[in-house]
Amino acid sequence: MRRTAFYLPTMKDTPAEAQIVSHRVMLRAGMVRQCSAGIYAWLPLGLKVLNNIARIVREEQDAAGCNEVLMPTIQSADLWRQSGRYDAYGPEMLRITDRHERDMLFGPTNEEMVTELFSRDVKSYKQLPLNLYHIQWKFRDEIRPRFGVMRGREFLMKDGYSFDVSKVAAAEAYKRVFISYLKTFKRMGLVAFPMKADTGPIGGDLSHEFLIEAKTGESEIFYDSALNDLDIFNTDTSDAAALDQAFQTLTAAYARTDETHEQGEFEAAVPELRRRTARGIEVGHIFYFGTKYSEPLGAKVTGPDGAEIDVHMGSYGIGVSRLVGGIIEASHDEQGVIWPAEIAPFHVGLVNIKVGHEGCDAGCQQLYDALRSKGVEVLYDDREERAGAKFADMELIGLPWVMTVGPRGAESGMVEVKNRKSGEKVEVAFDKGLELVMANAPRR
Amino acid sequence: MRRTAFYLPTMKDTPAEAQIVSHRVMLRAGMVRQCSAGIYAWLPLGLKVLNNIARIVREEQDAAGCNEVLMPTIQSADLWRQSGRYDAYGPEMLRITDRHERDMLFGPTNEEMVTELFSRDVKSYKQLPLNLYHIQWKFRDEIRPRFGVMRGREFLMKDGYSFDVSKVAAAEAYKRVFISYLKTFKRMGLVAFPMKADTGPIGGDLSHEFLIEAKTGESEIFYDSALNDLDIFNTDTSDAAALDQAFQTLTAAYARTDETHEQGEFEAAVPELRRRTARGIEVGHIFYFGTKYSEPLGAKVTGPDGAEIDVHMGSYGIGVSRLVGGIIEASHDEQGVIWPAEIAPFHVGLVNIKVGHEGCDAGCQQLYDALRSKGVEVLYDDREERAGAKFADMELIGLPWVMTVGPRGAESGMVEVKNRKSGEKVEVAFDKGLELVMANAPRR
Repeated sequence: MRRTAFYLPTMKDTPAEAQIVSHRVMLRAGMVRQCSAGIYAWLPLGLKVLNNIARIVREEQDAAGCNEVLMPTIQSADLWRQSGRYDAYGPEMLRITDRHERDMLFGPTNEEMVTELFSRDVKSYKQLPLNLYHIQWKFRDEIRPRFGVMRGREFLMKDGYSFDVSKVAAAEAYKRVFISYLKTFKRMGLVAFPMKADTGPIGGDLSHEFLIEAKTGESEIFYDSALNDLDIFNTDTSDAAALDQAFQTLTAAYARTDETHEQGEFEAAVPELRRRTARGIEVGHIFYFGTKYSEPLGAKVTGPDGAEIDVHMGSYGIGVSRLVGGIIEASHDEQGVIWPAEIAPFHVGLVNIKVGHEGCDAGCQQLYDALRSKGVEVLYDDREERAGAKFADMELIGLPWVMTVGPRGAESGMVEVKNRKSGEKVEVAFDKGLELVMANAPRR
Repeated sequence: MRRTAFYLPTMKDTPAEAQIVSHRVMLRAGMVRQCSAGIYAWLPLGLKVLNNIARIVREEQDAAGCNEVLMPTIQSADLWRQSGRYDAYGPEMLRITDRHERDMLFGPTNEEMVTELFSRDVKSYKQLPLNLYHIQWKFRDEIRPRFGVMRGREFLMKDGYSFDVSKVAAAEAYKRVFISYLKTFKRMGLVAFPMKADTGPIGGDLSHEFLIEAKTGESEIFYDSALNDLDIFNTDTSDAAALDQAFQTLTAAYARTDETHEQGEFEAAVPELRRRTARGIEVGHIFYFGTKYSEPLGAKVTGPDGAEIDVHMGSYGIGVSRLVGGIIEASHDEQGVIWPAEIAPFHVGLVNIKVGHEGCDAGCQQLYDALRSKGVEVLYDDREERAGAKFADMELIGLPWVMTVGPRGAESGMVEVKNRKSGEKVEVAFDKGLELVMANAPRR
C-alpha cells in the first residue's frame, strides 16, 4: 500500500484526553477516533490490526472444533426475563424500546440468545458436543468509559458457548477452550496467565480469567514464576486424559488476581524466589455454569435412553478490540508501538528518502513490487515529506521492519534495514534485505 | 469441512412464516434463524455466504482506491441535530437513551458521522480526493419487517463516502464508484441495471439505484434490452475522459423503476422490440449530494489559494446481507439455491454413499484431501444417513459441484460428478473428476 493512497492521519502532539500509553498511541498513530464517550471509529491502520487479532482468534477457534455463527446486536428483552437477568443486569445494559414499544437491548453478552438458538435445532445427544462462537460488537454502558478501547462502551468480543450432555463432557469442553486460549494469545506474542476467577453475573462454579502482564494493568496479579516456563502446546486435546493432565499442570501453579488472592496460601504454595507480583490486563474469561441457562430457556436434548437432559453449558470470551490496546500496553517504547509479527498492520515499512529522485523511486518500486509479489504486506511512504517525519511515523506505527532507500544507497543497490524491536540496523544489498525481512513474514 | 463437524441444521419442511423463496430456502438450508422480528442470527453456512459477498465488495472497493474504516453502530443524536435529520428521519430510526440520559441512536446510515470524522483530520485540498467506506451493521426500524433478510431491521451494509474539492471532482468520484459497482455485482454472477433514481431523504441532485432482475422483486423496472449487452469493464477509470464516456454509454440507455418511469419517454427512446418490463430488487444505491452535510457539519478544506472550501460529497451503499437473499431470488430452482462460484459457501460437496464401507471411506478421504490441499473448499457429508437425504441437502444448499462415491465406483476408482447449475452428471476417474471441479475454482 502506498502511503499517499492510504488514509493514515498521524498526529505529532499527544492528545490531552488520553491517560494511558495505548490510548495515546492509537490516537497519534491514526488508528482510532472517538465518536462518543467510549465509542470509537476504527481508521484503516487500526482496523487492519483489529482484523488480524480477529483472524487469529477465528483460526484457533476453528482449530479447536468450534463453529462460527453471527448473532445480531439487538436482542429481545423477553429472553433475558426468562433467564432472570433482565432486571439483575443493572444500568450497564443498554435498554431500548422499538417503534412498537417492545423492550429490546443491545447485547452485552449472548448466553440467552445462543441457548434459545440452540434449542430450536438441536434435539438429540447425538448432535453434541457443540461449540458455537461469534465475533460481534457488544455494548456495555460503563458509567465512566476510559482508557480508549480498553474500557469502551461499544467493543468487539469473541464469545463462544459450549453445549454438552453432562458435567464431565462440559468440563472437557472447558479444558479444550482453556488450552486453545493459551495458544491464541501466544500467537499474538503474548504470555497470558490463567487465573482462577469469580464467576460474577454469568454464574456457575468454574471460571478462569486470562491476564497479560502490563504496567498499566487494572488488576494486581500474584503468580508462581514457574508458569513462565510451562509449555503445553503439543497436547492432543482430543485425548481426554492428556487434556486433563495439561489442564491440571497449568492450573496447579499459583496464579490469582487481587480479587481471589490469599497471601497465606501464596506463601505456603510458592517458594519466595518464585513469587511474582505484577499488574495485569484481562483479555479473556471462561465459565462453566452447568444448566443455569438451559433450564429456564428449555434447552434439552434426548439422551440415549430417551430421557430428556438439560444441556450443560460454558461460555468463553476474548476481548478482541480490548486486545488492540492490551498488546500496545505490553509492547511499546517511547517512540511508539512494537507490533508482534502476526498482529502488525503491515510487515514492512518502506521509506523513500527523496521522492522524485530517479534512483530512489526506482529502488523503492523494485522493493515494493518484490515484497508484494510474495504476499508480504508493505506500507510504502511515497510522500514528499522530510525523511525525519517519515522515520518518526514508522517508529510510531511500529511495523516489524523498516527498509530505507536514499540517493547514495540507490546508486550502489544498497538498502538500510531496521528491526523495530531490537533497533538493529544493517545496510545490505537489495536481495539480502528482502531475504532478511521475508524470513518468517506472514503471507497474505 | 466434515459435515459431522459442521453445524448445519437443515429442515425438510417449508417454514410457514416464509413468503418468498429466498427466505424459505435460507431457513431450510440452515443459513439463518430469526431472533426477533426482522432480526436474524447467521448460522455457519449463511455466514460463509455473507462473508464471501462482503469480501468481493471489499476487494472491489479497495481496487477502486477506497479506504476501509469501521464506524461504530451507536451514534450521538447531536450530530443528526446538526444536519437537521434527527427529527426528519422518522420512526425508522432506533432512538436510544443511555444511562446518562444522552440521546443516542443505532445508525441507519453514516453521512453525519463520516463527515465529522473527516473534518477532524483532513484540512487541505492536498489530502483529497478521499473515499472512506465501511461494512457495518445498521438498523432501520421497519414497521413491518418481512421477506427474511431482504427487508430486515438489523442488516449489513457497505456504505462509502467520497470527499472532493469541487463538483467536477465529485462527479468523477461518483462515476468511478458507478463503474466499480457494476464490476462488483458482475463478480457475484449478477447483472445489475443502473437506474436513475430519486434522492429521497439523503438529498442531492444525482442518484442511481442498482437493481437485479428477479420475479419476486419489489419494484417494477423498465429498460432497454441493449443494456444486457453492454460491457465496460476495460475502462481505465483513472482517465477522466474514458470514465465519463463509459458512464454516458451506460446511462444513455433507458432504465427506470416505477418511481421515475415515464411511459411516453420509454416509447420514444426505445424501439418496441428492445423494451423490457420486469421486476427488480434494489441491491445498491449511490448519491451525489454536494455540500448538504459538509456545510452544517463544518467539513472544509483549504484550497490552493488559501480560501476555505466546503467539501463535495457523495455516498454509496450496497446491501450486503440483502444480497444473500437477492442472489437466491435470482438463482434457484425447485430443489434449492444455485450459488454463483464466487459466492458459494463451499465449491464442492462430497457425498459418501456408504459411510463405514472401506472403499467409500478411503475414496472420499482421498478426494477430500486432494481438494483441501489445493485450497478448494469442500463440504464432506460423512454422516451415517440415507444417500437420498444427502443428495437432497446438497441440492438445497446449492454448491456448484457434487462428487459422489459409492461402493461400486470406489472399487473401480470412479466418482460421479454433478454440476448443480446444468444438472449434468458424469462418471469419471478420480483424477478426471478433480480436474473438472477444480477448473475455475476459487482458492482460499
